[in-house]
Amino acid sequence: MQYARPLAELIAQLERLPGVGPKSAQRLAFHVLRMPEDDVRRLSESLITAKRSLQLCSICQNVSEADRCELCNDPRRSGDVICVVAEPRDIAAMERLNEFRGLYHVLHGLLNPMDGIGPEQLKVRELVSRLVEGVDEVIIATNPTVEGDTTAFYLAKLIKPLGVKVTRLAHGMPVGGELDYADTATLLSALEYRREI
Amino acid sequence: MQYARPLAELIAQLERLPGVGPKSAQRLAFHVLRMPEDDVRRLSESLITAKRSLQLCSICQNVSEADRCELCNDPRRSGDVICVVAEPRDIAAMERLNEFRGLYHVLHGLLNPMDGIGPEQLKVRELVSRLVEGVDEVIIATNPTVEGDTTAFYLAKLIKPLGVKVTRLAHGMPVGGELDYADTATLLSALEYRREI
Repeated sequence: MQYARPLAELIAQLERLPGVGPKSAQRLAFHVLRMPEDDVRRLSESLITAKRSLQLCSICQNVSEADRCELCNDPRRSGDVICVVAEPRDIAAMERLNEFRGLYHVLHGLLNPMDGIGPEQLKVRELVSRLVEGVDEVIIATNPTVEGDTTAFYLAKLIKPLGVKVTRLAHGMPVGGELDYADTATLLSALEYRREI
Repeated sequence: MQYARPLAELIAQLERLPGVGPKSAQRLAFHVLRMPEDDVRRLSESLITAKRSLQLCSICQNVSEADRCELCNDPRRSGDVICVVAEPRDIAAMERLNEFRGLYHVLHGLLNPMDGIGPEQLKVRELVSRLVEGVDEVIIATNPTVEGDTTAFYLAKLIKPLGVKVTRLAHGMPVGGELDYADTATLLSALEYRREI
């Protein structure tokens, strides 16, 4: 016996999401059937609206509604320090500190030769092109993992010859952990003790 | 720092789903941004289509595209045995056996006085109204939990005076387990050794 077609289709679509297996897809689908129609409409629309209305900021490559994101547009932020992160969500982790007032650059991944991810697959060229305009320091805030370390050393080697200081978040975070999950105190001390590489 | 508004809205909507916390909502949202637009459109549409096009079968209360579901419409199925289940997904578990050829009835829940769920909150009246038309047996296939047991005994007391045999799936399943998760062999033996109550 098959589920009614629209239900089977919904389960199939939900199963394609990361971390959603057949059982959770089924449970989510039945939950959707029990939700008020207005809530389902809101969820449905937010999916397509987010996908259609968001782009990458032409400067820092963060997710943005406009050509330039709010952070790059903020006149109170200083352009002489750029903090390099792997993913847009890492910006949120840094911003929760209320400490860093420079700009960001999102790589959209980390170097991983095993998976065929080299500098061309990341926003490295876009980062280098920003370093001609009086940038004093690049803080590399990648996760303290093999890929994060590889990426940090690769970027340091690339950027230092341009006369820009390259620092990295101090190892205050548990090795193998993820930036996105670090608590504020840990991340704050990691920012404070960042070291030149 | 806030995420761009459409992204924040998507995260908020995803967080309202069962089993989706703030972190997974965020991860799902960023996954959506990386998905091809066609896939996002398909997911978005399947949500609203499932919600809008599905109703409850007027006979068995299963999820259905039409007024009568495919199972109730199937002339090869016999109307003299009705298998009572808690949720529509339990029908799928029974149908995987390829053994039962009668009809179903979905209660949409189980009795739970602590949560204020009495017979009026379930499709009990709809079940009783089906028992006037030459039904020989009602198989109660509720989970072997406190609520499942309570519901089974309540229904037996209600239905037996109507001259209909009431049986229940044998305890072959681990007590406290869920019908929906049982393997086929266990469920098959539970069906075979169903006993009158």
